[in-house]
Amino acid sequence: MADPGGAESLLVRAARGERTPRPPVWFMRQAGRSLPEYRAVRAGIGMLESCARADLVTEITLQPVRRHGVDAAILFSDIVVPLKAVGVDLDIKPGVGPVVAEPIRTAAQVEAIRPLTPDDVPYVDQAVRALVRELGGTPLIGFAGAPFTLASYLIEGGPSREHARTKALMHGEPRLWSALLSRLAEITLAFLRVQIGAGVSAIQLFDSWAGALSAADYRTHVLPHSAAVLGALADTVPRIHFGVGTGELLGLMGEAGADVVGVDWRVPLDEATRRIGPRAVQGNLDPALLLADWPVLEREVRRILAEGRAAPGHIFNLGHGVLPDTDPDAITRVVEFVHSL
Amino acid sequence: MADPGGAESLLVRAARGERTPRPPVWFMRQAGRSLPEYRAVRAGIGMLESCARADLVTEITLQPVRRHGVDAAILFSDIVVPLKAVGVDLDIKPGVGPVVAEPIRTAAQVEAIRPLTPDDVPYVDQAVRALVRELGGTPLIGFAGAPFTLASYLIEGGPSREHARTKALMHGEPRLWSALLSRLAEITLAFLRVQIGAGVSAIQLFDSWAGALSAADYRTHVLPHSAAVLGALADTVPRIHFGVGTGELLGLMGEAGADVVGVDWRVPLDEATRRIGPRAVQGNLDPALLLADWPVLEREVRRILAEGRAAPGHIFNLGHGVLPDTDPDAITRVVEFVHSL
Repeated sequence: MADPGGAESLLVRAARGERTPRPPVWFMRQAGRSLPEYRAVRAGIGMLESCARADLVTEITLQPVRRHGVDAAILFSDIVVPLKAVGVDLDIKPGVGPVVAEPIRTAAQVEAIRPLTPDDVPYVDQAVRALVRELGGTPLIGFAGAPFTLASYLIEGGPSREHARTKALMHGEPRLWSALLSRLAEITLAFLRVQIGAGVSAIQLFDSWAGALSAADYRTHVLPHSAAVLGALADTVPRIHFGVGTGELLGLMGEAGADVVGVDWRVPLDEATRRIGPRAVQGNLDPALLLADWPVLEREVRRILAEGRAAPGHIFNLGHGVLPDTDPDAITRVVEFVHSL
Repeated sequence: MADPGGAESLLVRAARGERTPRPPVWFMRQAGRSLPEYRAVRAGIGMLESCARADLVTEITLQPVRRHGVDAAILFSDIVVPLKAVGVDLDIKPGVGPVVAEPIRTAAQVEAIRPLTPDDVPYVDQAVRALVRELGGTPLIGFAGAPFTLASYLIEGGPSREHARTKALMHGEPRLWSALLSRLAEITLAFLRVQIGAGVSAIQLFDSWAGALSAADYRTHVLPHSAAVLGALADTVPRIHFGVGTGELLGLMGEAGADVVGVDWRVPLDEATRRIGPRAVQGNLDPALLLADWPVLEREVRRILAEGRAAPGHIFNLGHGVLPDTDPDAITRVVEFVHSL
């Protein structure tokens, strides 16, 4: 292979802030329920089990590359995988999401969360090595949840719309909060180091729920912990930093140490670039638009391609994950369209 | 009564863009599940039934005024009440929200939605008249859902996180979309005219889900319909326009014809004022903060009071509705604190 690991790939070049001949294109949650071949291999196998089997992780990660010809794969995982790996009692319930048996509220519970070592996630190391071999020049993106989003699941006990207990603990017990997020940052960092050691070409830190916070709260209570993760990886691979509803946080999410800031569908990429400064951007296509007719979708893709030129580097992607009802052909068509330019 | 209807009240003065000696204070969803007296009167009575009984609407609307001494009451209702009143088959399911029996997808279904007349909602007229008598100088705020948020419920068939079908219809069938929203705007306008005719001192248009849209989509597909409602009421009472996650839309929500723009907890009021221009603002206290300790809450209240001075008029409120788990005493304490300044 001329380019094992994809260091010269469009994705890595765009992530490093280079204006590429065309943007690389991939889709958040491209490996998942929109694909019949995914539903077939997952049949009868729970989400956490499928994330802990190297053969399944490898197969599921490859599926969208085979089908759509996207310019990057992303490791199939879930943000709670490293928590499960260090012994937190949790499960992923279909139609609900992660459910934590004993929500975390006390210092003793925080103390009980142990660090992650590579031996806790051998299947991740194995899957990444297998994938790097299989993918050739197509880069593989590593995957981890950010400390705040992990903390929200642990404190609320599951997915939350309001994050009320999380915010109450953040404001009411700042030392306990900081202890919890520091510990989660260490776990996230160790989890990403395993992936980088095994050969991923970039990583994406998912702070899915960070958009629930004001910029002031994000800056004080969250940014230092995400920065601990991203900063420690500065000399490794490009780092993508993403959350939803983060229009007020885009600049801070860059400052946390990202090479690329992910943008949802609410802020156009040219405006996002004004807020972020000289970093690459990724995203902005509304996942709901994949359910619309092609002329509508094409218009939006063209808009995003034009607005993305304002940034030093542009990675074409959705503003959030692929919706389960999406017709996979719509995704393939967008990939072909971006490739045709 | 010196000031029936509250035309000289702090609320109306602040809404008109006047800098008042202190901001008036009320809370979205102040009448509701946080209050034991609310749970008592609602026991065994469904949400839609309770909204359609003038005696209950009156009692529930008054409860937070009695308990907290807030500076305004808001009519107890639900955004789907006018839809139910014109015969749309829907119910409000506890723990779920509005559920529509036959989600709207066709022109025939849109045609079948008939206009609202005052005779459809006699209980609203009765309750408002009773409340204006009871409230004396405390102003009563009228209540209605905006066309987009109503359309989302009708198209999705219930609450939605992604609004995928709504967006697909908006983009894919713009004529059908426009027909539906025009019809909903007429219903909303008629519903608000009943309330204004019966004596409310201001109205609030709730576009709860508008924040799911980009500014471009909002401007093209939503703003004209909300403007049809707000514009028609320009010479009546002050108009408050509110949604969640609307940081990118604040200017447009003002342009739609609002005297006051409601702001969630993500955008500080001084920054909101820069985006909105010379209109009054309302909101910004994170409802989750009512679950924190008083020193934390007091600091936030002080911050909001300071930042609100940047606006021509400031109405103190939450950035979204009171959470059901809220201790009512926390609300009372915030009211007393604002009143003491």
